[in-house]
Amino acid sequence: MTHEAGIPLGIRFKLLSDTPQDSAAQVVNEVVIGDYRDLDTLREFARGCDVITFDHEHVPTEHLRALEADGIPVRPGPDALVHAQDKGVMRARLDAIGVPCPRHRIVTDPQDVVRFAAEGDGFPVVLKTVRGGYDGKGVWVVESAEEAADPFRAGVPVLAEEKVDYVRELAANVVRSPHGQAVAYPVVESRQVNGVCDTVIAPAPGLDETLALQAEEMALRIAKELGVVGHLAVELFQTRDGRILVNELAMRPHNSGHWTQDGAITSQFANHVRAVLDLPLGDPRPRAEWTVMVNVLGGDYPDMYSAYLHCMARDPQLKIHMYGKDVKPGRKVGHVNTYGDDLDDVLERARHAAGYLRGTITE
Amino acid sequence: MTHEAGIPLGIRFKLLSDTPQDSAAQVVNEVVIGDYRDLDTLREFARGCDVITFDHEHVPTEHLRALEADGIPVRPGPDALVHAQDKGVMRARLDAIGVPCPRHRIVTDPQDVVRFAAEGDGFPVVLKTVRGGYDGKGVWVVESAEEAADPFRAGVPVLAEEKVDYVRELAANVVRSPHGQAVAYPVVESRQVNGVCDTVIAPAPGLDETLALQAEEMALRIAKELGVVGHLAVELFQTRDGRILVNELAMRPHNSGHWTQDGAITSQFANHVRAVLDLPLGDPRPRAEWTVMVNVLGGDYPDMYSAYLHCMARDPQLKIHMYGKDVKPGRKVGHVNTYGDDLDDVLERARHAAGYLRGTITE
Repeated sequence: MTHEAGIPLGIRFKLLSDTPQDSAAQVVNEVVIGDYRDLDTLREFARGCDVITFDHEHVPTEHLRALEADGIPVRPGPDALVHAQDKGVMRARLDAIGVPCPRHRIVTDPQDVVRFAAEGDGFPVVLKTVRGGYDGKGVWVVESAEEAADPFRAGVPVLAEEKVDYVRELAANVVRSPHGQAVAYPVVESRQVNGVCDTVIAPAPGLDETLALQAEEMALRIAKELGVVGHLAVELFQTRDGRILVNELAMRPHNSGHWTQDGAITSQFANHVRAVLDLPLGDPRPRAEWTVMVNVLGGDYPDMYSAYLHCMARDPQLKIHMYGKDVKPGRKVGHVNTYGDDLDDVLERARHAAGYLRGTITE
Repeated sequence: MTHEAGIPLGIRFKLLSDTPQDSAAQVVNEVVIGDYRDLDTLREFARGCDVITFDHEHVPTEHLRALEADGIPVRPGPDALVHAQDKGVMRARLDAIGVPCPRHRIVTDPQDVVRFAAEGDGFPVVLKTVRGGYDGKGVWVVESAEEAADPFRAGVPVLAEEKVDYVRELAANVVRSPHGQAVAYPVVESRQVNGVCDTVIAPAPGLDETLALQAEEMALRIAKELGVVGHLAVELFQTRDGRILVNELAMRPHNSGHWTQDGAITSQFANHVRAVLDLPLGDPRPRAEWTVMVNVLGGDYPDMYSAYLHCMARDPQLKIHMYGKDVKPGRKVGHVNTYGDDLDDVLERARHAAGYLRGTITE
């Protein structure tokens, strides 16, 4: 999707990919198959690139420093990216700059989890390995010391957090360039199902303007303080008592910004590319009153072709984004965007299409 | 741009290109370098393709028939495409189905041009080689038998046409699928400079609704009667006496439809891909009151980078589409789209950006 956004800008990509089957490897012109954990592979790949960016956070921080030492611009740079790679580092830094987060600390063992619970309102407690998690993986909600044993088995430091009493999840997406130019997209509501993003509504319905502005400013401040270059998604909890707390950070185009492809003047992908190349940023404002994104998860049937035809025929305004992935149950294989003036209608159309593509809706 | 539009649909392209420097060859994943005039090259290339389509009209008709005989779907097929390849065939067919055209006939030599002029209102007469022309090439406006000598030197049949007294040029863009589903984009005004499309305004300002509907219906009828599959652009003259005459046909995404990338719910490129694969077509309606496209021609300076930065910084809503081509004076190297409610503003922004990129505007 970043390549797609780069085409009109005249920007050529070279892709390092694990396998030729990866979504991006199917559409980018110049593809190198290799392991991003191998420094020699990265160095060889980086030669001749003007700038390196990422579609995930898992490239080892020390490798990024090595590339920078070789003179290759890495954006976002390792000093910023580490906050999206390591939840412990992220929480410490957000504390230091006064950004509100759920109560948290690094815990050493299940008994320490019991102590963490006792320091606040007790169980449940959320445990997260500080590195390697995504889409609900690497996250546990535990009610006791016994349940807290699993997270420690990976041998990675474990972060404990209070289970926040939230009314909904929001996301503030911003993009920042090396020049320090920055743009903020409208704050969206993000609905998760089983820890996986399901629906994003832009802008977040009924969100108090002051709270929306506070969330945008917070995201812009985090981007600046952490030296982010490119897209930053700040996942937020809106608490029952009207506060906003930071849940997670992602430093790349993010699922909560996929609506911008069809719903904003400039998409998150285009602005990420512009930021990474230090080009002036594009207007982030919405083009429609409401835009809804619903993820398409793989269902029980591997062949989605007839559903794909049906959805296009039923709704000629539907914007389908398929990733070229093999269908496996629960796997994100695409998303749909809808937009318009009537939120109920926009929501229904997106949900229907995504459900039909998955096979959970059959009429 | 067709590849770009195919990415979200999950459609993979294989490209046959003259050189690795071609715009599409820089961004498509699977590129074969070869000569489209060589049947063996075409046959080897076509193996394993679900369908073949084109971004120009110059593949020899007999080669397309050979591919069809091999069982490869070619869309648009040779029986349709010949009308975009051969202006003589096109005029004969439009006459047969009663579509209004400028007065015309095939002429055999300069003296026959004098007779053609005498049959109507005299000189000037427009002469066109029936094959091989584009962007004003292969077209002469002549005032005498002496001036009429050039066109006959190519050894290709020459079509003579009256020089139409038109107030402006329009274009009606439609897309038709093998199923026979068809959509019509709003009729646009197309302004040429030195025979090359310069500016497109969507919809055509002040166009009488009856005339607009007549143009759309005419384009849909031509698509149906000629068996077009994919995008059909019908270039039109709006005459001083309020008629509409067909100038040219193009059977592929067309410069007069580039505005749809940012100005329509479904772009011409997406609908062309959908049609060629016999997928249900997308909504062709505009997303903004006015959309303006201005072509970016190469200027005197080969390095457009600082102009590119300036344009993005000046107008964050500007949609730039660069083709990755080397800059040569007068060469189409990209286009810009702008949209909004105020036509004067939308026009000014597009013209300024295109002029600045070319170097004819410097402030």
